Amino acid sequence: MARPGMRATVRDVAAETGLSIATISRVLNGQANVAPHTRELVLQAVGRLGDQAPRPRAGQETMAGGTIYVRCPYLLTDYFGLIVSSVGETIELHGGQMILGTGESGRHTPAISGLPDRSDIAGAILILPPEPGDELVRLRDRQFPFVVIDPRTPLPKNIVAVSAAHFAGARKLMAHVVELGHRRVGIMGGPVEWLPSEARLAGYTASLADVGVLPSAELLRNVLEPNTENGYRAACELLDLPERPTALVAFNDKMAVGALWAAAERGLSVPGDLSVAGFDDIDLSRATLPMLTTVRQPLQEMGRMAVTLLIRLLSRHTLEALHVSLGTDVIVRGSTGPVPS
Amino acid sequence: MARPGMRATVRDVAAETGLSIATISRVLNGQANVAPHTRELVLQAVGRLGDQAPRPRAGQETMAGGTIYVRCPYLLTDYFGLIVSSVGETIELHGGQMILGTGESGRHTPAISGLPDRSDIAGAILILPPEPGDELVRLRDRQFPFVVIDPRTPLPKNIVAVSAAHFAGARKLMAHVVELGHRRVGIMGGPVEWLPSEARLAGYTASLADVGVLPSAELLRNVLEPNTENGYRAACELLDLPERPTALVAFNDKMAVGALWAAAERGLSVPGDLSVAGFDDIDLSRATLPMLTTVRQPLQEMGRMAVTLLIRLLSRHTLEALHVSLGTDVIVRGSTGPVPS
Repeated sequence: MARPGMRATVRDVAAETGLSIATISRVLNGQANVAPHTRELVLQAVGRLGDQAPRPRAGQETMAGGTIYVRCPYLLTDYFGLIVSSVGETIELHGGQMILGTGESGRHTPAISGLPDRSDIAGAILILPPEPGDELVRLRDRQFPFVVIDPRTPLPKNIVAVSAAHFAGARKLMAHVVELGHRRVGIMGGPVEWLPSEARLAGYTASLADVGVLPSAELLRNVLEPNTENGYRAACELLDLPERPTALVAFNDKMAVGALWAAAERGLSVPGDLSVAGFDDIDLSRATLPMLTTVRQPLQEMGRMAVTLLIRLLSRHTLEALHVSLGTDVIVRGSTGPVPS
Repeated sequence: MARPGMRATVRDVAAETGLSIATISRVLNGQANVAPHTRELVLQAVGRLGDQAPRPRAGQETMAGGTIYVRCPYLLTDYFGLIVSSVGETIELHGGQMILGTGESGRHTPAISGLPDRSDIAGAILILPPEPGDELVRLRDRQFPFVVIDPRTPLPKNIVAVSAAHFAGARKLMAHVVELGHRRVGIMGGPVEWLPSEARLAGYTASLADVGVLPSAELLRNVLEPNTENGYRAACELLDLPERPTALVAFNDKMAVGALWAAAERGLSVPGDLSVAGFDDIDLSRATLPMLTTVRQPLQEMGRMAVTLLIRLLSRHTLEALHVSLGTDVIVRGSTGPVPS
C-alpha cells in the first residue's frame, strides 16, 4: 500500500515549509481542518518543488507521512510490548510514524481529550485503562479517527475496536480440561469489572455446563490485578479447600505461574496431582517445567488489524464490523493431564 | 524541571501557526536551524498570543514540547520493553513526546541518517543493532543530539552512551558461584562480537582466576542469538562433557531457562546436582522452579538516565562522562547451591 517516493516528497515539502508532515498530509488530502495561510504555504511549496509532489487522491489506503498517536499506559513487557511492536512496525510499513504515549504515569493524565486539536496527529490507536467512555464519545463525535485495542470495559456505540475472541478461547481451553476428566475445576479469574474476565468466565462455564457441572462460587477467585503473586494467593485458597480441585484454570499465564508455585509448596506434582492452565501464551508459559497449557492470543495480529482499520478510517471507508474479534488457539503442553484416579 | 503552563502555551502557538511543536521550540530556544519565514510566523503568533508565551531561556533543563525519536528495532518484550517504557515515561514527565521507531523490520532500514534533516525531531535515543559506527559519527559531526543505550559494539569517540556495568555484575555473580565451592563452571556466552558478551566473560574469568581457575575453551559455548533454544543446546553440550560441570552460568535469563530444560532432561536436580545462573532479572527468572539466581540490570534506570543525558545535550551542557555505566546487583535465588560432594 505504501507507494515508493511518496514519503520523500512529503518530507521535502516539510523541509521546505517547516510544517509538520501531518499538516501537509492533511492539506494534500483535502481535509478541512487546516488554517488557510497554512494551506497556502503548502501549496506554494508544492508548486516550487514541481511535479514530484504528491496530489490529493480519494480513498488512498496509505498513511504516508502521517503521524499516529498510540497510547499504552502499561509497561511494555510481553503482552502489551508485542501489541505495540506490531502496531509500530505496521505503521512504518505504511509510511507513517508512531508517537507512543506510554508509562504507567499516563494512567492518571487525560492524554486523549486533546488529540483532535493537535495538527500533528492524523489518528490514534488506544489501549485503554478503565476510564470513562464519554471521553471516547467526544473523540468520536469530533470525527477524530481512532481504534481501540483489547477494550477492558464495554465501549460506547460506534467505536472501532479489535480484541481476541475471549469467550471462544476460554471455552476451547475448558473443553480440553473436561475431556481429561476434570469436573472439580478451580477458576482463577481476572478483575471482575473487565470485559475479558467476564467473557473468559462465560467460556469456562459453558464447557463445564456441557458435562453437567454448574458454576460454583466456592471454586471461583477473582483478583484485582492479574499478576503472579495474586495468582499464587488465589491458588493457595483453592488448593486449601476441604475438597481440593483437580485442575486450576487461570485468567492469564502470570497467574498460572503462581498456581505452579502454590502446587510445588504443597508437594503436588503437575500434572499428576493437579492440572494447571493459563491464557495468552507469553514467553513465561514456556519457561516453566512443565510448560503451560494455554490459549494463544494473536497479539501481533491485533496490532496489524488495528492499523488496517485505522487506515480505512483515515481513508473514510465504511466499516461494517465495528468490533473485530480475532481467533485464538488452545496450546496443549505438559501442565494439563488426566484427572487423578 | 517541567514548568506548568509552558506546555499549553507552546501548543497554543502550534494551534495558531500549524507548525510542529519541535519547530516552535527551536525558534523559542534561539536555535539556528529554522527557516527565516518560519521564525517570523512563530514570533508573530507569540506576539498575538501576548505575554503568556514562553521566552527563550539559556540552559533550561526541559524538553517541553520537544519530540524525541527513539529507535528500538527489537520486539518490546521484557528487556527492551522495560527500557522503552521508562524512556517514554521520562520524556513525558519532562513535557516532551516520543516518536518510537520499532519492529524488527527496522533493522534493515537506514532509520537514523535522516534525523538531522527533520524539523520535527529535537533529539534521539538509540538502541542499536550491530551497524556501522560511521553513521553515528555523521550524526555526531552534524551536532545532532543523541544518546545510545546499551551499545552492542564499540562506539566511536565522543558519543554519549548508557549501559549496565556488565563486567562488575558478572564478576560478582561468579564470586557467588565460586564461594559455593564450584570450580568446574560451564559458561554459556552471548554472541562473540557483542560488547556485553566480552565484558561479562571477563568478569566471570576474573572471579574464577581469584580462586586459581584458568579459562578453558572446553567449558565455554558462545551462541549467535541469546535465546532459550540456543541456551538449551549449549547446556546440552556442556552437560554431556566427559567431566560434567557442576554449575552453568548463562549470558542471560532466557539461556538459563534452556539450561534448566537440559538439566531436567538428564534427570539432574537443580541446585542439588547442578547450579544454574542467569543475567538480567527479567520476569522469566521468577517463573521457573527453582527461581533463577541472576544479575539485576537497572533497565528502567537506564531509560531515565538516557533521557537525563539527552536533556543535557539539548541544553548544550558539557558532559564529562560520555559513557555512563549503571551498577548491577546479584540476586541469589534457589537455582544456585553448594557444589555436590
